[in-house]
Amino acid sequence: MDEVLKRCRISSRLVRECFAEFLGVYILILFGCGSVAQVTTSENTKGEYLSINLGFALGTTFGIYVSKGVSGAHLNPAVSLSLCFLGRFPWTRLPFYVFSQVFGAFLAAATVALQYYDAIIHYSGGSLTVSGPSATAGIFSTYPAEYLSVWGGVVDQVIGTAALMVCVLALGDSRNVPAPPGLEPVLVGAVVMVIGISMGSNSGYALNPARDIGPRIFSCIAGWGEEVFWAGAGWWWIPIVATCVGGLFGSLIYQLLIGLHHPELDVTENLDKVQDLELEHSQKECEKPKQFKIMQEQST
Amino acid sequence: MDEVLKRCRISSRLVRECFAEFLGVYILILFGCGSVAQVTTSENTKGEYLSINLGFALGTTFGIYVSKGVSGAHLNPAVSLSLCFLGRFPWTRLPFYVFSQVFGAFLAAATVALQYYDAIIHYSGGSLTVSGPSATAGIFSTYPAEYLSVWGGVVDQVIGTAALMVCVLALGDSRNVPAPPGLEPVLVGAVVMVIGISMGSNSGYALNPARDIGPRIFSCIAGWGEEVFWAGAGWWWIPIVATCVGGLFGSLIYQLLIGLHHPELDVTENLDKVQDLELEHSQKECEKPKQFKIMQEQST
Amino acid sequence: MDEVLKRCRISSRLVRECFAEFLGVYILILFGCGSVAQVTTSENTKGEYLSINLGFALGTTFGIYVSKGVSGAHLNPAVSLSLCFLGRFPWTRLPFYVFSQVFGAFLAAATVALQYYDAIIHYSGGSLTVSGPSATAGIFSTYPAEYLSVWGGVVDQVIGTAALMVCVLALGDSRNVPAPPGLEPVLVGAVVMVIGISMGSNSGYALNPARDIGPRIFSCIAGWGEEVFWAGAGWWWIPIVATCVGGLFGSLIYQLLIGLHHPELDVTENLDKVQDLELEHSQKECEKPKQFKIMQEQST
Amino acid sequence: MDEVLKRCRISSRLVRECFAEFLGVYILILFGCGSVAQVTTSENTKGEYLSINLGFALGTTFGIYVSKGVSGAHLNPAVSLSLCFLGRFPWTRLPFYVFSQVFGAFLAAATVALQYYDAIIHYSGGSLTVSGPSATAGIFSTYPAEYLSVWGGVVDQVIGTAALMVCVLALGDSRNVPAPPGLEPVLVGAVVMVIGISMGSNSGYALNPARDIGPRIFSCIAGWGEEVFWAGAGWWWIPIVATCVGGLFGSLIYQLLIGLHHPELDVTENLDKVQDLELEHSQKECEKPKQFKIMQEQST
Repeated sequence: MDEVLKRCRISSRLVRECFAEFLGVYILILFGCGSVAQVTTSENTKGEYLSINLGFALGTTFGIYVSKGVSGAHLNPAVSLSLCFLGRFPWTRLPFYVFSQVFGAFLAAATVALQYYDAIIHYSGGSLTVSGPSATAGIFSTYPAEYLSVWGGVVDQVIGTAALMVCVLALGDSRNVPAPPGLEPVLVGAVVMVIGISMGSNSGYALNPARDIGPRIFSCIAGWGEEVFWAGAGWWWIPIVATCVGGLFGSLIYQLLIGLHHPELDVTENLDKVQDLELEHSQKECEKPKQFKIMQEQST
Repeated sequence: MDEVLKRCRISSRLVRECFAEFLGVYILILFGCGSVAQVTTSENTKGEYLSINLGFALGTTFGIYVSKGVSGAHLNPAVSLSLCFLGRFPWTRLPFYVFSQVFGAFLAAATVALQYYDAIIHYSGGSLTVSGPSATAGIFSTYPAEYLSVWGGVVDQVIGTAALMVCVLALGDSRNVPAPPGLEPVLVGAVVMVIGISMGSNSGYALNPARDIGPRIFSCIAGWGEEVFWAGAGWWWIPIVATCVGGLFGSLIYQLLIGLHHPELDVTENLDKVQDLELEHSQKECEKPKQFKIMQEQST
Repeated sequence: MDEVLKRCRISSRLVRECFAEFLGVYILILFGCGSVAQVTTSENTKGEYLSINLGFALGTTFGIYVSKGVSGAHLNPAVSLSLCFLGRFPWTRLPFYVFSQVFGAFLAAATVALQYYDAIIHYSGGSLTVSGPSATAGIFSTYPAEYLSVWGGVVDQVIGTAALMVCVLALGDSRNVPAPPGLEPVLVGAVVMVIGISMGSNSGYALNPARDIGPRIFSCIAGWGEEVFWAGAGWWWIPIVATCVGGLFGSLIYQLLIGLHHPELDVTENLDKVQDLELEHSQKECEKPKQFKIMQEQST
Repeated sequence: MDEVLKRCRISSRLVRECFAEFLGVYILILFGCGSVAQVTTSENTKGEYLSINLGFALGTTFGIYVSKGVSGAHLNPAVSLSLCFLGRFPWTRLPFYVFSQVFGAFLAAATVALQYYDAIIHYSGGSLTVSGPSATAGIFSTYPAEYLSVWGGVVDQVIGTAALMVCVLALGDSRNVPAPPGLEPVLVGAVVMVIGISMGSNSGYALNPARDIGPRIFSCIAGWGEEVFWAGAGWWWIPIVATCVGGLFGSLIYQLLIGLHHPELDVTENLDKVQDLELEHSQKECEKPKQFKIMQEQST
């Protein structure tokens, strides 16, 4: 009986987490791809490349606020996978998370298409194309610059996702200088911002398999056709494979250069860094008097 | 006697709150519409679309700082209405709040017109028009893009306001990852920023009935004439009705996917999230020793 | 003897505060006017109007960080004057603060001229002019747009400085939602940002007598000549007088609509807002046990 | 034996710190030079001067997050040197820090060249040049504007680095208004932002010997040739010497005008500023009851 109840609770918790991952990625893509749609269909009059960077950055921020308290806000299969390798996330939940993430991105792409339906028709003259002067497939998923080789694209995505992972691990490392509580989502958004600013022009900084494949599947179904998979010499698999490799690579670098070197419980050297822990500790100490009071009352 | 005193206190509190909502929306529109006026009359030399986004975002931020401690800083009839539906705000105060909000927006529009009087006359050559090359009615209220259908406009405003509501509810949800105390106004401003970046080009992201109808009434009176209501195929009612629908819709989505799934008082699983609650708790515990001390002194 | 020591300490404190106000305004103008110099001399290739807005905003932020702990970081004679009227600053120190502020702005303008000497000579062809295609006087102080009337300029500066004052008072009002400790400088910078975005095109948002007159005197001496005072139909007095009027006007509005309405010590209604006070209180309570312990030890 | 163990621990700590400085500067340059590469090779279509400012600012921010908990995040030989002069950093570690910083910058430049290999070849047509219409050496290190004299360049770098140092010292001064814990990296990034906005057009705001010489050496080796040292009339030594002078100069100014004037232990005047210290104090007081409780238990 207890066993059943426990399993039931676990599965209800998993459903809850999947809802959160779904909604988090949905918000991320709604704002991110929405900003691309705005810049594209307004022909740069109501936005510019910086506003696309801001769209994905703040999309990430609010995707995390919406979901972090429930699911931890991975919002990215490459992050979930890296956390599995680091032993911080159970492999059994990985497929559920990944499915929720991809589905959230798919539905958000559909929402952007709905919201910008009139604009896309007006901009493209009604023909939904993947390349050419009035191409609109780039609203949904990433395509490489013309000059980019396959190998260059792989390197680009590996470096980008590794940089993302190094920064995200640093922001959450309580033995380094962690982000202040409640501001991690803003700072992770800022990481996405700076990657968009410094690594965006080669191939549109996917960094996230779900961000890319979900909207790509939608655009394939919704009228842009199979061309979305052929374009860029079959680019579609690189934002899936290279980002996962990059995520693992970044985790490895952070662990090798920083994580493994934290001194073991050498508290005196790290007073500044353990202030949070101290605070918790002192709070627990503060609670002691209550017990004491009761004890005293009993003894008197 | 007590009854009279109590009623008197309630009404004085309502007056206080109405003043705060008035001043909050006034600041929001002063900065928001001011930034449109600057970009329009300087013909994009002293600003661009991003600065309009920033104007409304920071306008929202400081509108909230000015009013939140007194009235809760709804600053938006659609938000007040949603909170009534969620049972967090009494229906009886709704009309007073809405009136204060609309009046604040009206007066702020008048202030912008006063501050930019010379500039508007210079830019428009003296003829205040709603459409055409030197139209200036767009400084005050929103008008749809030419390609936008009525149905497309409704969808646009419903999605935009729903996204706003989902994010605002997440930022205030103490069982998720809430915004740090004192920084909610900045983060709500950032939500308005990202919506302006990703959902602004269709119809100018009103998101707020008061933000739109208050300045529209002003511009109707002040010389732009009844055209402000005819323009855009009678666009004016959409930022009123669709935003309210969107606010309710967004509240519903957040409750269904996140809010309702928070575990009931299962503190052990949510230690991270209840740190604020714990802090309050421990502080109360800390106060106990005082009582104890007094008790001790009495017993000795 | 004690009297002498006390007076000595007061005057040493005043010197300290004057140094801080000097350095704070110096930093503000160094970054602010520096950003105008960069945009002007690079002919908009290394900056745009938004970067001038950011320059003055972040200049304000770091001017405050540099000085707030020592002098309170007024950095603006209009702010000092308003605080005198509100009874929060002694009239006797006003002249010392104002002198330090103006002198800081003067010396910062000289530093900008030194740093951009080659650039200004290259851009202007060696002739330092106040108006015309290669005018450079606008690097240092504000000049009105051609269309602006005197009355329009006064209104512009009164509204701008009043808006600044309302927001700054709200950010520091512990009975409203104050800025988080340590982030006030950032938020005051954001106020300057949004005013530059929404009220900058008429006359360059001086908002601050010292910011305008200090650099104007420098540019008069350094080669731009008396024209800096004649230009704009004798514009120079408006950023001095109108900003002081606006500061007082804004203080009045905030007090009338928000400040005076805070309930008197009605703590139960304002639990959220007094959390900081509570924290201090509970901490003091926490210290009690020590006394108690000693007392106990004595009694045993 | 103890002596050996101690020396061993010191050297292991130094290795740890060097890794952190290496990774911190690596992240800084990866994002900073990456943003220049993006703007250059996309010919301003995927970025502008503001995005380069943001790239170096956020690069600094995340470089600090990655390393601050381990090495203190100097990330800049001029900062390390200034801290040595101020007596806050031992001279014996200076060479190790400087080497790690330069090596981090070198390797990051190599990574940027790898990631943008296809883009650089496409943009430059295959010829790697230091000046001319398709010059790409500016991606890696700084070069002066054509109009800048040697003396003007020295002044530019001295003022820039002094301004950086004044602001950074203020942000870390617990007796002034320090940055909130966990947000120093963001605020130091904002200092770099505003310097880029207000002092960037003369010579590209190196501010940091490692940021300039590391990538310069890389570009010399990687195909741009010795021209990277001849260009700009032998500009390369100025970002090394003038930044160190500027760092010392800025430290001196802050100490003379602010640091030395903090009153000695005059706690009653500085209650606001010592709140953090108070907090720590009260927490220690809170822990007392535990000892007391044990004492009580023993006594009963």
